[in-house]
Amino acid sequence: MTIGVLGGGQLGRMLALAGIPLGLRFRFLDPDPQAPAGVVGDLITTKYDDAEGLDALAGSCDLVTYEFENVPDAAARRLLEHVPVFPPPEALQIAQDRLHEKRFFRSLDIPTAPFEPVDTPEDLDRALARIGTPAILKTRRFGYDGKGQYVLRSRDDAPHAWQALGGVPLILEGFVPFDRELSIIGVRGRSGELAFYPLVENHHREGILRLSIAPAPGWTPELQAQAESEARRVLERLGYVGVLTIELFACGDVLVANEMACRVHNSGHWTIEGSIASQFENHVRAVCGLPLGSTRSLGASAMLNFIGDHPPVAEMLAIPDLHVHLYGKSPRAGRKVGHATLCAADGAELARRLEIVRSRLGL
Amino acid sequence: MTIGVLGGGQLGRMLALAGIPLGLRFRFLDPDPQAPAGVVGDLITTKYDDAEGLDALAGSCDLVTYEFENVPDAAARRLLEHVPVFPPPEALQIAQDRLHEKRFFRSLDIPTAPFEPVDTPEDLDRALARIGTPAILKTRRFGYDGKGQYVLRSRDDAPHAWQALGGVPLILEGFVPFDRELSIIGVRGRSGELAFYPLVENHHREGILRLSIAPAPGWTPELQAQAESEARRVLERLGYVGVLTIELFACGDVLVANEMACRVHNSGHWTIEGSIASQFENHVRAVCGLPLGSTRSLGASAMLNFIGDHPPVAEMLAIPDLHVHLYGKSPRAGRKVGHATLCAADGAELARRLEIVRSRLGL
Repeated sequence: MTIGVLGGGQLGRMLALAGIPLGLRFRFLDPDPQAPAGVVGDLITTKYDDAEGLDALAGSCDLVTYEFENVPDAAARRLLEHVPVFPPPEALQIAQDRLHEKRFFRSLDIPTAPFEPVDTPEDLDRALARIGTPAILKTRRFGYDGKGQYVLRSRDDAPHAWQALGGVPLILEGFVPFDRELSIIGVRGRSGELAFYPLVENHHREGILRLSIAPAPGWTPELQAQAESEARRVLERLGYVGVLTIELFACGDVLVANEMACRVHNSGHWTIEGSIASQFENHVRAVCGLPLGSTRSLGASAMLNFIGDHPPVAEMLAIPDLHVHLYGKSPRAGRKVGHATLCAADGAELARRLEIVRSRLGL
Repeated sequence: MTIGVLGGGQLGRMLALAGIPLGLRFRFLDPDPQAPAGVVGDLITTKYDDAEGLDALAGSCDLVTYEFENVPDAAARRLLEHVPVFPPPEALQIAQDRLHEKRFFRSLDIPTAPFEPVDTPEDLDRALARIGTPAILKTRRFGYDGKGQYVLRSRDDAPHAWQALGGVPLILEGFVPFDRELSIIGVRGRSGELAFYPLVENHHREGILRLSIAPAPGWTPELQAQAESEARRVLERLGYVGVLTIELFACGDVLVANEMACRVHNSGHWTIEGSIASQFENHVRAVCGLPLGSTRSLGASAMLNFIGDHPPVAEMLAIPDLHVHLYGKSPRAGRKVGHATLCAADGAELARRLEIVRSRLGL
């Protein structure tokens, strides 16, 4: 069986590394001839909306999935005429627009920040009056790693915020006074089978994920049940197939949904070593209609992202129980070029060793 | 860094699956255009002794290693003129000839079966007189998976044995009254750093490995120390770099060396899930001059080989904690097409679950 993947980045690369042992083959469509997934599958080098490229992909694969979010809607529709596409493009459409996404969460009784659509300076004034400050003005579409966002400390910031982002559909979101950021990664098979990884705690800097700890420190069955309940409603309403990630704000005992990603997620990379079956293997199993693998975690894990560049390989490999993943990308500021996962028997040992490893590697 | 590999079978495929996350690229030389490793690296499709193919490999890689034993000596020498080759070709030469191999073991005070070279029917008679029966006549070169062997129950079998194998250099080996078959997998880095996996118990049928259990049931520190001492002597005498496997007969408390393989080994496949760093990752680390990874095992593991064909994938993936590895080969009698590894917390749980899994999958 050959799996087509829209996008040939590190997520596609890790999907293939998990799927090849199951006897699967991979074909990627990516505009970049140096795409990281090119070493583990065939690469069709066209734009994502190129009709010829899409037809070549659809014509040579048994099904298509994607490894990044901004797949043009028309591309998904074109593929669907020829081949099954998982997760369902409807999920993608919702996740691509912050306004639709938040309305969708609300329709499922999933808590979100207060929000208002903003299309004009007048909309922004009205939204600020209702939501108050601090608040965040965001582009509804094409935001990632903190791009396309403007934080308003007071209503006086409105003109600057509008100047920075105005002209495309926007959303104003109230600031959620969160204690920490978590994520829940769930997977739904073609038969409706469900599985969830334990809640992950995520630490960002400059809008980019730097560190994930799993299970999240202070993990409780109640918090897990709440997160799973929210994710389950999303998965089942959409008839979803594959891995879905919901980023959450933890506000005391309440989990507020921030956004969802219809794909494997950076905060789930630790599952390669830290879980029986990784998020990559489970995504592949799900889209192929195979039984899901166990999401049970093995001890505690921490995932450290390498942004811009990575520490010397030999230095990293000298650290016991550190697992290194490089994506084959050349160094560039702000670019995710790899990650490492540190595994330990439990959270306390992990915390102790993590400090040492971070200082040793300067991360 | 690009690693060249002579041979593009499943061992090469799993080497690349372990090495790609370290940012390495792979290029394989294999006469078969359908070689299993072709999906995880570039494939040069020539014979192993093709000068042009070898030069193309040497010219495009930073170093060369191999994933099968019968690399022609001239090929290794030709490569060495242009590029480092690990493990050292001398090790390969010794391992390729059962007589040299046994003499080498003896020179290191490593116990072996009694043996005699056999080049004529008269040699065979003399050897039988000295060694007695049962005994095994083997071709000195190019034997694998039990091929090229003839068991002599009595001296009357000599003419048949000669008829079956005579005409090439042979060796007669005394039959070792072993309790069971074990293997020790060791790895030596370019700096001389050493690491060993726990002893593995191996079960063959029709000369082909069917089942490995690790750590070997009844494992003791004394047995491990004996095996490591034997392997260490081999590794250090040869200035070896990479993974080396020695197949052993356990005769009570004595470990008798049967043969060695200068490569990752089928009896080490369980290390992918059952150990912190797999034999594949450690071979790659070793040949690249990187620090070795931990060989500590996680609980107990059993590896089941799929010979000829494999059970249905969906059936296998429905079994918790079973990890499936298919090699992308079409079914054919006697062919290794994949394996699965069952992981458990300890040997007792493994034994209990292994019975269920084997009967469920008909293995």
